[in-house]
Amino acid sequence: MSTMNSPTETAGADALRQPVRARMADGRELLYFFDHPGQHEDFVPPADLRELPERPSPARLRRDPLTGEWVSFAAHRQGRTHLPPADECPLCPSGPERSTEVAAAQYDVVVFENRFPSFGPGQQEQQRSEAMGETYPAEGRCEVIAFGADHGDSFADLDVPRARTVVDAWAQRTAELSALPGVEQVFAFENRGAQIGVTLHHPHGQIYSYPYVTPRTLTQLDQAQRHREETGRNLMQDVLDFEVAAGTRIVERTEYFTVFVPFAARMPVEVHVVPNRHVADLAGLTARERSDLADVYLRLLRGVDALYATPTPYIAAWFQAPVRHPAAGELRLHLQLTSPRRAEEKLKYLAGSEAAMGAFIADVTPETTAARLRAALATPTGASA
Amino acid sequence: MSTMNSPTETAGADALRQPVRARMADGRELLYFFDHPGQHEDFVPPADLRELPERPSPARLRRDPLTGEWVSFAAHRQGRTHLPPADECPLCPSGPERSTEVAAAQYDVVVFENRFPSFGPGQQEQQRSEAMGETYPAEGRCEVIAFGADHGDSFADLDVPRARTVVDAWAQRTAELSALPGVEQVFAFENRGAQIGVTLHHPHGQIYSYPYVTPRTLTQLDQAQRHREETGRNLMQDVLDFEVAAGTRIVERTEYFTVFVPFAARMPVEVHVVPNRHVADLAGLTARERSDLADVYLRLLRGVDALYATPTPYIAAWFQAPVRHPAAGELRLHLQLTSPRRAEEKLKYLAGSEAAMGAFIADVTPETTAARLRAALATPTGASA
Repeated sequence: MSTMNSPTETAGADALRQPVRARMADGRELLYFFDHPGQHEDFVPPADLRELPERPSPARLRRDPLTGEWVSFAAHRQGRTHLPPADECPLCPSGPERSTEVAAAQYDVVVFENRFPSFGPGQQEQQRSEAMGETYPAEGRCEVIAFGADHGDSFADLDVPRARTVVDAWAQRTAELSALPGVEQVFAFENRGAQIGVTLHHPHGQIYSYPYVTPRTLTQLDQAQRHREETGRNLMQDVLDFEVAAGTRIVERTEYFTVFVPFAARMPVEVHVVPNRHVADLAGLTARERSDLADVYLRLLRGVDALYATPTPYIAAWFQAPVRHPAAGELRLHLQLTSPRRAEEKLKYLAGSEAAMGAFIADVTPETTAARLRAALATPTGASA
Repeated sequence: MSTMNSPTETAGADALRQPVRARMADGRELLYFFDHPGQHEDFVPPADLRELPERPSPARLRRDPLTGEWVSFAAHRQGRTHLPPADECPLCPSGPERSTEVAAAQYDVVVFENRFPSFGPGQQEQQRSEAMGETYPAEGRCEVIAFGADHGDSFADLDVPRARTVVDAWAQRTAELSALPGVEQVFAFENRGAQIGVTLHHPHGQIYSYPYVTPRTLTQLDQAQRHREETGRNLMQDVLDFEVAAGTRIVERTEYFTVFVPFAARMPVEVHVVPNRHVADLAGLTARERSDLADVYLRLLRGVDALYATPTPYIAAWFQAPVRHPAAGELRLHLQLTSPRRAEEKLKYLAGSEAAMGAFIADVTPETTAARLRAALATPTGASA
């Protein structure tokens, strides 16, 4: 939660939008978030009438001795739902003919615990040793967030109030999940497009609560700490100042956020959205910032979709400061949106150099991508709903 | 080179097989390696009669301030050859009708500098600062290695003497490239299969000479150093002892090498091949070890191809100790072979958790994969040529 992380003042005083809470037939939690407060007050969540098998035991964590990284083994995920036709979609609302994961006949935004989780169910503090051969329950929590009831939409099709509801749901989930025992980092993300492995087309994202600080975040923490020791300054603030001064990679800048292609972007499309003040996570944003973010993010997604004749596959990854790490105060909330698409019909694959060595070769300069995105954001498609 | 890396005795005394050297029309080096010494002595490399454009200037290196990692920007690679039909293959031998990258009418194994390199041409020591906004020439060297003249083969189709020639070529290249100024790490790898982004079907691999120590290797160095400080022992030796004692993930063990699925394998198919004694790189292997490795590696690839009805896409990545890093002596040569294939028709995609956070979720237990591989190695397909 922001209050645990922030070295500088964060607003966070603005109340977070709260959901209506329900339980699914197998005990999983399901939360309804509404675009308008009136809906919330009138809503009684219908019961989940399905018979569901018992929830699986949590996956198992193993430590890779060569890298020190944790890997979660979730064998039950092999059987997960894979690109079902629309009339079998588990994220559509329930109807007289068919019960889905969402018992309601209509909804705005729902969040529920994943039936095939990589982490959880269950959360508790764990003492894990580094001894080879030990395994541990992969506790934590994995949630699905559906951005709307309409199966054919994508995030870029949402209206601004709905995008704001999603941002509010992310913020509320971040605050609540960060407070769970044993949760070290909350990660909201969206994978969009079958080309990058999406298994459900209904517009949705995921929220992972990891029982460890992720490798990428540890690397960022390490760099930010080194930067603080060497300069006395916050790394992301210096990156932001550098990008604003350079200007050539800036896509958009509002009162609260800066959108840019980073100087050393790894992917053919890579855009970062960084808040202009230091804030640890989505839960720490003020109500005005959350409104602005909904606006900025929608414009960005529409611009990304305007880059090509067909929708652009992407990974939208919300980097948030970890919950308990001693250096967490150095990390600032930001979005890293990436797409492997390097031409209309070509994807960048992460093969030998990238996958095995972590050494990235990029084909497109960040300045070119930024210019294309600025143009895409300015087109009618990019600007209108 | 092994002599710079190894804390313990390495053989390396056995002479490395030397190639016949030629130059391509644009000045790139091309090296012929032969299965039999007699061929070498009689061979006069034909001239490359093509008119080729001047070689591009090297790509540019940029440092990512958030992670400290270098990214190479190689815009000229956007135009590289993409899945040409067999009659336009640049790796087939030249004939009266058509000149390819290889001027000879027949060959066993050739190595040549990549026309679209991620690093190079040019090598020199560079002083690189960490200041934001600086770019540097991405010097180093990228080579292509063709495993044979037959377009339709794959590595698993080679005979044992040919596989030995490939191993010898890797060893010779590692020794020579490690001695170039500014080269920090030599990485031999093969990407196999269009599913993982291969752009040429002709059986071939690549050899990258990086002007920096790669991120994955830095992580391994860090873990190995910590392990040495905490236990006084070498990390890979302890991993090997642990895997041999456990036994459940061992695929094969010879006098010189151990083949196993690692305890925390990230990918649906992941196999490591580790030499039983401490040796830094392929150049440090004795002649007997190189022979055994050719044998072991062929059996492994045939086993991997026997897992499914169609050939298995894979990345074969030869981890070698870096050339000059002060802790390089802790790292042992090993192969990490991975495939994203998790079922006959399903690939594992690296999406939000893996790609953005570096946090891996695996579907298959390493013990299951090891059992499948042991069975596959024992089948007639896996055992015969």
